Amino acid sequence: MRERGEKKGRMSKGEETRQHIIEKAAAIFNQRGYEGTALSDLMEATKLRKGGIYRHFESKEELAAEAFDYAWGLAWRTRRQGLAEIPNSVDRLKRLVRNFVEIRTPNLPGGCPLMNTAVEADDGNAVLRGRAREALGWWREFIENTVEAGKENGEIRKEADGAKAATLIIAGLEGGLMMSRLMHSLETLETVGEFLDEYLETQIRKI
Amino acid sequence: MRERGEKKGRMSKGEETRQHIIEKAAAIFNQRGYEGTALSDLMEATKLRKGGIYRHFESKEELAAEAFDYAWGLAWRTRRQGLAEIPNSVDRLKRLVRNFVEIRTPNLPGGCPLMNTAVEADDGNAVLRGRAREALGWWREFIENTVEAGKENGEIRKEADGAKAATLIIAGLEGGLMMSRLMHSLETLETVGEFLDEYLETQIRKI
Repeated sequence: MRERGEKKGRMSKGEETRQHIIEKAAAIFNQRGYEGTALSDLMEATKLRKGGIYRHFESKEELAAEAFDYAWGLAWRTRRQGLAEIPNSVDRLKRLVRNFVEIRTPNLPGGCPLMNTAVEADDGNAVLRGRAREALGWWREFIENTVEAGKENGEIRKEADGAKAATLIIAGLEGGLMMSRLMHSLETLETVGEFLDEYLETQIRKI
Repeated sequence: MRERGEKKGRMSKGEETRQHIIEKAAAIFNQRGYEGTALSDLMEATKLRKGGIYRHFESKEELAAEAFDYAWGLAWRTRRQGLAEIPNSVDRLKRLVRNFVEIRTPNLPGGCPLMNTAVEADDGNAVLRGRAREALGWWREFIENTVEAGKENGEIRKEADGAKAATLIIAGLEGGLMMSRLMHSLETLETVGEFLDEYLETQIRKI
């Protein structure tokens, strides 16, 4: 929120409207999907007419791609909350898991934008698939870098495989979230979180 | 396929057409989603006109629900392939994991119908969400029952928690599949499969 406020000072009226559309669209695309979002949904949420929206974007695809990046930025900020202050790399990974399990991203109903977009675009829209791949890449890289840093400063075992850890953490959390959202209960996600916690303690942390 | 052939003998012409529509629709809904599937897609795949399709179904929702059950039946049959012949319950669970990792369901492009429907319907269509919940329930129950049977005949440790095992196996596989389908590479899913294999050997099998 503050970031947007900071930007606002330098934004033209047109840029401001564009940003407003992206923010409103992000929540809708994340809940209803790319195909499930109608122009009328976007008009209602932004209080703009068709021309007022498409003056700023060439196509629904361009708007959805921008909305994805914005949504992923929100989700990623939530998941990284408080991590910078944690000195130990294993504790940092544990907090990353805990953030995913415990905190729903504010102003972004509909679950994880990466999963939502990946499942819809895996054999569909190539532009959205590209954005989702980039997002997954950043997440993987963050975990891999944390594991490497932990190895260097002796907090993580030398034989730990950062790429494997990234796969297990992300797959477990995303699969657990899918089940939890389907059942409208956090139980599954909490079970996965506890398991990953144990995995990080017993297979990643140096003893 | 044989099952359909067997049924055919007892099917009226109308039932046959209905079944034909369900089978064709299942592949399309599984790739494009409920919202992403247009009537024109269904007409093209079935070679029927609108009236020819909607004579057999009250709504797109009813057709999608039937198509989901059919798709899930195909996927579930693939995942259970060869399991009945395996006497040891841990080996049965390992084969379930391996089937998921290695075999793509024939005649069902688009990935896992449970994940596809869950992600689209988690805050959307209640009928489809209900079908996906049932499917998840069967899968969970199969794993839980296998764990219980394994405990009774001394193949699985008494302290193993069937519900937890079901959560970890399903979440890991589904999350791994999401990543693999996004990246168009089986690597992630294989990593999860190997990890679950190790988990079943070291935390579930009785030593």
